[in-house]
Amino acid sequence: MLAQQLAPGAIVTDPDAIAPWLIDWRRRWHGRAALLLQPRDTAEVQAIVVAARSLGVPLVPQGGNSSMVGGATPPADGSAAILSLRRINRIRRLDPAAGLVVAEAGVVLADLHAAALAQGRRFPLSLGAKGNATVGGLVSTNAGGTQVLRFGTMRGLVAGIEAVLPDGTLHEGLAALKKDNRGYDLDQLLIGAEGTLGVVTAASLRLVPALAARAVAWVGVTSPDAAMALLRRFQRATPALESFELLPDESLAAVLAYLPDARAPLAGRHAWHVLLEVTADAAGDDPAALVEAQLAAALDAGEIGDAALAQSEAQAEAFWRLRESISDAERATGPAAQHDISVPVEAMPRFMVEAAAACDARFPGTRASGFGHLGDGNVHFHVRAAPGTDPAHWYAEQVPVVSRFVHDLVAAAGGSISAEHGIGQMKRAELERLGPPARLHALRAIKRAFDPGQLFNPGKLVALAPDRGSE
Amino acid sequence: MLAQQLAPGAIVTDPDAIAPWLIDWRRRWHGRAALLLQPRDTAEVQAIVVAARSLGVPLVPQGGNSSMVGGATPPADGSAAILSLRRINRIRRLDPAAGLVVAEAGVVLADLHAAALAQGRRFPLSLGAKGNATVGGLVSTNAGGTQVLRFGTMRGLVAGIEAVLPDGTLHEGLAALKKDNRGYDLDQLLIGAEGTLGVVTAASLRLVPALAARAVAWVGVTSPDAAMALLRRFQRATPALESFELLPDESLAAVLAYLPDARAPLAGRHAWHVLLEVTADAAGDDPAALVEAQLAAALDAGEIGDAALAQSEAQAEAFWRLRESISDAERATGPAAQHDISVPVEAMPRFMVEAAAACDARFPGTRASGFGHLGDGNVHFHVRAAPGTDPAHWYAEQVPVVSRFVHDLVAAAGGSISAEHGIGQMKRAELERLGPPARLHALRAIKRAFDPGQLFNPGKLVALAPDRGSE
Repeated sequence: MLAQQLAPGAIVTDPDAIAPWLIDWRRRWHGRAALLLQPRDTAEVQAIVVAARSLGVPLVPQGGNSSMVGGATPPADGSAAILSLRRINRIRRLDPAAGLVVAEAGVVLADLHAAALAQGRRFPLSLGAKGNATVGGLVSTNAGGTQVLRFGTMRGLVAGIEAVLPDGTLHEGLAALKKDNRGYDLDQLLIGAEGTLGVVTAASLRLVPALAARAVAWVGVTSPDAAMALLRRFQRATPALESFELLPDESLAAVLAYLPDARAPLAGRHAWHVLLEVTADAAGDDPAALVEAQLAAALDAGEIGDAALAQSEAQAEAFWRLRESISDAERATGPAAQHDISVPVEAMPRFMVEAAAACDARFPGTRASGFGHLGDGNVHFHVRAAPGTDPAHWYAEQVPVVSRFVHDLVAAAGGSISAEHGIGQMKRAELERLGPPARLHALRAIKRAFDPGQLFNPGKLVALAPDRGSE
Repeated sequence: MLAQQLAPGAIVTDPDAIAPWLIDWRRRWHGRAALLLQPRDTAEVQAIVVAARSLGVPLVPQGGNSSMVGGATPPADGSAAILSLRRINRIRRLDPAAGLVVAEAGVVLADLHAAALAQGRRFPLSLGAKGNATVGGLVSTNAGGTQVLRFGTMRGLVAGIEAVLPDGTLHEGLAALKKDNRGYDLDQLLIGAEGTLGVVTAASLRLVPALAARAVAWVGVTSPDAAMALLRRFQRATPALESFELLPDESLAAVLAYLPDARAPLAGRHAWHVLLEVTADAAGDDPAALVEAQLAAALDAGEIGDAALAQSEAQAEAFWRLRESISDAERATGPAAQHDISVPVEAMPRFMVEAAAACDARFPGTRASGFGHLGDGNVHFHVRAAPGTDPAHWYAEQVPVVSRFVHDLVAAAGGSISAEHGIGQMKRAELERLGPPARLHALRAIKRAFDPGQLFNPGKLVALAPDRGSE
């Protein structure tokens, strides 16, 4: 019956065709599913939702399958069907003057970038998985990336959403109203809901002017506090500070050892390094002059140790490559426990120093450090295993203990155990353990209100616990 | 028992002391309440919520009582108590470097402006009721105003919320995390919820640099389309376009007739007028030069009829006074039906022209026109009664018919029947009539999940209908 409502090829049962979509990006989660549904448009998604509901079959929405927390991997018991949005991938409308694009859920981020650029505009959100990640997943995980400092996460870039709700009704919110006070904001509720409250089928997204120029600099500083002072200096000087990344010298050293052709941007040694980028939207603006002037003033004031302004786009890319290779480089040196965490921006310098010291003291032989988006109060906090540790033992026995310790420090600092990756399967137990009771209660109440049967992305983010009685 | 948990003076039963808080700002809604509760801090709010819940007494949260839609007026049956947040009015913390302020719910907007300014910062949201409106109400109604074009509504200015939820738990979300992906965004859910999902007790709010300079210009154009072209010109030229207001010549004429000392900014007659403002945050920037250059180019290109750049702060104020006097001036000419509506920005020029013509044709003798925030796709659309109409008859008999007609046009254009004022009591029936079923269903599901007993601001925004069976 459902087959008659869908275009040919929409229902996939061939195990070989399904197999690639059963394993997550980091190859940590292995699910099972006998059915992969590939609708072509929103009406087909509605038909699928109605059928799934009447049959009681759970649905796992999936875009580029690039979740970092197992958020798009089906449950291991094979009870759910995968609902792939990849074929719903048209750009319905792009209005450069209004700075708006309506993109369907399956549009790949890199394709969205290209479509905007072709009209002299830019979609100002990017991340490593841009060749795979889709609009639906970016919306549903409230994706961030390296430009959040200036443009915010998806939460600030979404102007409207079209979604099929668990009851099969269509939420038509694409109209991109700049002001709309008709009650609770359903678009904002669906952003970051990880597919647990319905299926996003399209989004209206904000565009900004295309990039005219950028200035990228590498700066050596003595401490995270000094980096914070530099951040505030640049924020006072320009609204166009687009990235401000901080890394310890040991991260740079790991990258230089890992990339044979890479060179240190500065001659001397510095305890900490900042990579910053200032952009210009209009031809004629000169971000390099602004950056140069600010760095010169900071040098004169003794606020920084040294600095290098990229002299070419190739050099700018080389600076960014150092930053983007940290995870790979550290992985090559041995196993680690990784944490995507945030605290209030002004609390981050102290947290980075004190949390690393606390970890090193608590787990002798391990080595902890944080690096990343200082300007967003979000770092990737890695605890590397002691040399010679057996990886299997480390991941099975030690990582859970280390992660609980790190997350306790984050909670004590008023922070979040998931800054940008979401909860998915991976962090659900930790969210249950640490999430403030009021928040957990509200999450469950909302889930229950929208999807009492838990048919939408079961096992992710939040679970109702009927066996635990009333909550 | 509750009395023992509250500071002296928190429980008011004197009818004379309660009376001023029973009538709304526009004096349209008259409620009754035997009890006014005035807690001093969040803990007292929690105690009140727990007591109200156990006794089944509904609570009507109230700040400055400046709702335009009866949103803070208690029900007429006297069943509810007023929960005033006005005494919870400390600024807990103001961090100019981080650009953040933590303000309690009872802080008056004008006081917040002053506190920010004293630290060289600006809270970039203002509105007519700034001497009364409080932070809690601004958050709970997702307030807008004249600076939305550049800085957005409260939804974009709130960095975190503290609120007492209906079950008495405290949502502690003030930490101002720039990135936090631990599931559904409770802060965003509470913004614009009109107190129906809990009581906001404090908010972390974003600050921007203090104003260094502004350029205000008055421009004559032939049509809303020409105004839209001018808007896009300025948006291409600068990110610091802060206001862009459009009004028809008849609105200006009404104001000039109403204000004895006011003068028309331009010599000739123009069918439509634009009031625009460009600001500068940093000393040295020259917004006047930018505005002058753009207006000169627009004049040369024949895009505008004439323009005047305010030559002094006094003249800038005079231009703004014309805009801000429209409602009073039109009221003086006779009764009108007023509508706070929005459509997609690019659809607004056509809507303004076609909707006015449709109204004039449908209701002979009346006269319709829209004015307001063109840059936000939000105008105040007024239909003035035919000369000689009896006001009592107009408001009782004709306004409902006119408003339904206008709202139907808005719905057909994909717009919102409440752009910035909210739903409150006034627009609930229209929301029920026009709100898409998926939206209404979701609103009720959320309300039921948080406040099944309907104890929080009963009769506002959304009502559950147990007598109508399952929804």
